[in-house]
Amino acid sequence: MRIGELSRKTGVPVPTIKYYVREGLLPPGELTSPNQAAYGEAHERRLQLIRALLEVGGMKVAEIADVLAAIDDPERPVHKVLGTAADRLGSGGIEHDDAGSAAARAVVADLISRRGWRTHESNPAATDLSEVLAALDRLGHGAFAEVLDDYADAAEQVARADLRYVDQRVAVEDMVEAVVVGTVLGEAVFSALRRLAHVSASAKLYGTDVPQEQKPS
Amino acid sequence: MRIGELSRKTGVPVPTIKYYVREGLLPPGELTSPNQAAYGEAHERRLQLIRALLEVGGMKVAEIADVLAAIDDPERPVHKVLGTAADRLGSGGIEHDDAGSAAARAVVADLISRRGWRTHESNPAATDLSEVLAALDRLGHGAFAEVLDDYADAAEQVARADLRYVDQRVAVEDMVEAVVVGTVLGEAVFSALRRLAHVSASAKLYGTDVPQEQKPS
Repeated sequence: MRIGELSRKTGVPVPTIKYYVREGLLPPGELTSPNQAAYGEAHERRLQLIRALLEVGGMKVAEIADVLAAIDDPERPVHKVLGTAADRLGSGGIEHDDAGSAAARAVVADLISRRGWRTHESNPAATDLSEVLAALDRLGHGAFAEVLDDYADAAEQVARADLRYVDQRVAVEDMVEAVVVGTVLGEAVFSALRRLAHVSASAKLYGTDVPQEQKPS
Repeated sequence: MRIGELSRKTGVPVPTIKYYVREGLLPPGELTSPNQAAYGEAHERRLQLIRALLEVGGMKVAEIADVLAAIDDPERPVHKVLGTAADRLGSGGIEHDDAGSAAARAVVADLISRRGWRTHESNPAATDLSEVLAALDRLGHGAFAEVLDDYADAAEQVARADLRYVDQRVAVEDMVEAVVVGTVLGEAVFSALRRLAHVSASAKLYGTDVPQEQKPS
């Protein structure tokens, strides 16, 4: 198909498609004449992926480029790509250097070993976690660490569901892409569900019922 | 204390503190002379909260101003403040108008009613959820909806843990702030835990073991 049709099918404007090609996010179309190129289903799919990572995942173009490069590298094992995608979601593992952060890092290392998680405490997600715990502690919510295992139970349940889905539903050649999609979009799914469960649970505890006809302001 | 000491205690530079006062995020100090103001523990605590929402929650200053205004409004019920804080985390509930989005909204409405959640399907989180499901469908992952209940189970578990923590640990006058902190920072905690559980679970399924001495790249 021509670029105009690709644009109509994906909802991505033509100049944006050209920008993605220039930035290396999208492979160029096959030249059919000196100034005309043909695009296929792979382009359409890749554009949908870029759009989802951008709009739903809130990722930046440069971050998406990293993740796509990882997807396109056949040498890279699935769990490394997953790590790349996941790290893009975090703060990038910037470590603060104070007593509170050191204590939080110890809590995280203990959690990882207690749960038998096959990951290293230098993983950027572990660093992000300890920074959040340190921030909670500074706010007087150090006791929040007591509910960490409830959170970890829930996180394991979500991770198992993701892998079951990938295992049953996804052809081997699409697996790496599916893992990236699941990491970024699954994050957004859980975030929205958690907010819904929260509002529901706190309405039951503290509030009055929300009548079905009342639209929240 | 003077503004210099407040800055040292919180790690927030003096010009930034003055900016927060100008923007209404922080109440002004009490004037002790025409050009000197005194700050108290409430200022210190509020600055830590702003810092956490900014650094960990990734919120913008204008969004933080909204949430703080909700915290400071004694008329507002807790679950409304929670909604304000939670909505700041989402896309703001922008609805797309196509067949895929309509189908996804029906899936979400069904989920809310099936689980007996006390929330309305016009909740911005519900809109966000249906947009993510529509994006997954466009990417050929419509079957992801099958694991939605596993996700919802986990979300309920996290919401219950949050409310138990707030209930046991937090004085009534701090409850609204605690709910905001929990919504934003709890989100970051779960995100990091999910990434750790993911890497661990996929290393077990697809990869080799991660030796303890090997630092992930």
